[in-house]
Amino acid sequence: MKVLLVYAHPEPKSLNGSLKDFAIKRLEEAGHVVQVSDLYAMNWKASLDANDSLDRQASERFYPSRESKHAFENGLQSEDITREQDKLRWADAVILQFPLWWFSMPAILKGWVERVYAYGFAYGVGEHSDARWGERYGEGKFTGKRAMLIVTTGGWESHYSPRGINGPMDDVLFPIQHGILYYPGFDVLPPFVVYRTSRIDDANYGEVRDALGQRLDDLWKTQPIPFRQQNGGAYAIPELTLRADLAPERVGFAAHVE
Amino acid sequence: MKVLLVYAHPEPKSLNGSLKDFAIKRLEEAGHVVQVSDLYAMNWKASLDANDSLDRQASERFYPSRESKHAFENGLQSEDITREQDKLRWADAVILQFPLWWFSMPAILKGWVERVYAYGFAYGVGEHSDARWGERYGEGKFTGKRAMLIVTTGGWESHYSPRGINGPMDDVLFPIQHGILYYPGFDVLPPFVVYRTSRIDDANYGEVRDALGQRLDDLWKTQPIPFRQQNGGAYAIPELTLRADLAPERVGFAAHVE
Repeated sequence: MKVLLVYAHPEPKSLNGSLKDFAIKRLEEAGHVVQVSDLYAMNWKASLDANDSLDRQASERFYPSRESKHAFENGLQSEDITREQDKLRWADAVILQFPLWWFSMPAILKGWVERVYAYGFAYGVGEHSDARWGERYGEGKFTGKRAMLIVTTGGWESHYSPRGINGPMDDVLFPIQHGILYYPGFDVLPPFVVYRTSRIDDANYGEVRDALGQRLDDLWKTQPIPFRQQNGGAYAIPELTLRADLAPERVGFAAHVE
Repeated sequence: MKVLLVYAHPEPKSLNGSLKDFAIKRLEEAGHVVQVSDLYAMNWKASLDANDSLDRQASERFYPSRESKHAFENGLQSEDITREQDKLRWADAVILQFPLWWFSMPAILKGWVERVYAYGFAYGVGEHSDARWGERYGEGKFTGKRAMLIVTTGGWESHYSPRGINGPMDDVLFPIQHGILYYPGFDVLPPFVVYRTSRIDDANYGEVRDALGQRLDDLWKTQPIPFRQQNGGAYAIPELTLRADLAPERVGFAAHVE
């Protein structure tokens, strides 16, 4: 199988760097083909702007999504963007690996999402009608592909537990797992999270590495998070609120998992 | 009073640009002093890296938080960072204004947070003991200052309602309002959110503008979101889980609001 690893840490000798190298090796030894987008090493341009399209008129008003659509449909996207889109088309599975900075992904990776996720590619796909609200949340261009996060954090696991002060890790990652990965059609696997990174030393690094290795070995058999499909009847259209008889007691992110 | 507006949209003629100009005018007419960090206009460097410190040795391993601490304590931060920190020290209130892109802030603003929020300034402040876990979540350098988000989104309000498919807006914004603003001590006001931006035209722009004007007029009397203080007895230390007798039925982000 083909795996794209999108990696966002500035230091190759970091814990993240070690885990990235290990992941590549493990996947390749299992016979998979791996491409890596090492965003810092690539000096990835983080900020979406009018220069992302090759034929912008400087005097016109810049509408980010209209311009993205026009550039995507007419072969006018910046080459760094099309290269990443080709990797996404190629991949059977996509792994995003990053340290959790301020409860989300680093800016450089957020900018990869914003620029590579073009209109017509990752959003703005499919018709809007009484029965369908675009191809998204369970449908879309990436249907049939798997995705998984590898996340490191200095915080303790209890800080991210159901009543932990940072909020449950599932909820902290929901805007990414549901909003960025499930939205364009990925099957999203449970994340691999390393807590309390300052405590990882030579003695216990092996445990972390082995646990990650197991997750990589199981990449094609792990059950995805059962997010609810938008157009499968669970949601009113166009309000997109969950049907009253489904999990009637639930509100918030957890309501969208079966 | 002194207001810092941190603004992240690439197009001055956009809805966001109009609201930003209106906000500045409204605040100044009320006698406040406003500074604006227009991140796109400033060509703000989004990606945190080793170049953020002035005395980095290229051969050393780069530890982001250790390097941030060293640079902050020793006057070795990049000048664009110290300038923003000075604005934060100066301000009585801070407004972050941005379009919601992929359920979070644009990369350029995320990179502002990552680079300006130095160790010793916005995190890594205060002692860790049996009774206190640093000065954060209700304490910290920004205690006594107010903060508010101005957010625009193409999605409908119902899509962000308690059972809406995107998740409730309060939860979508929790990592920012609680994790980025309350964490270093801001009193966080309820956000000003504009939904379904494609429907905003000349006829109804006035309503949006007036509603924002009212929120700005009330900036010093609006009640902040009652997030729970970390070191006030509500949380076990160091586990940082909410005491069992407080909102015993709640899990997730909502448990951290009184």
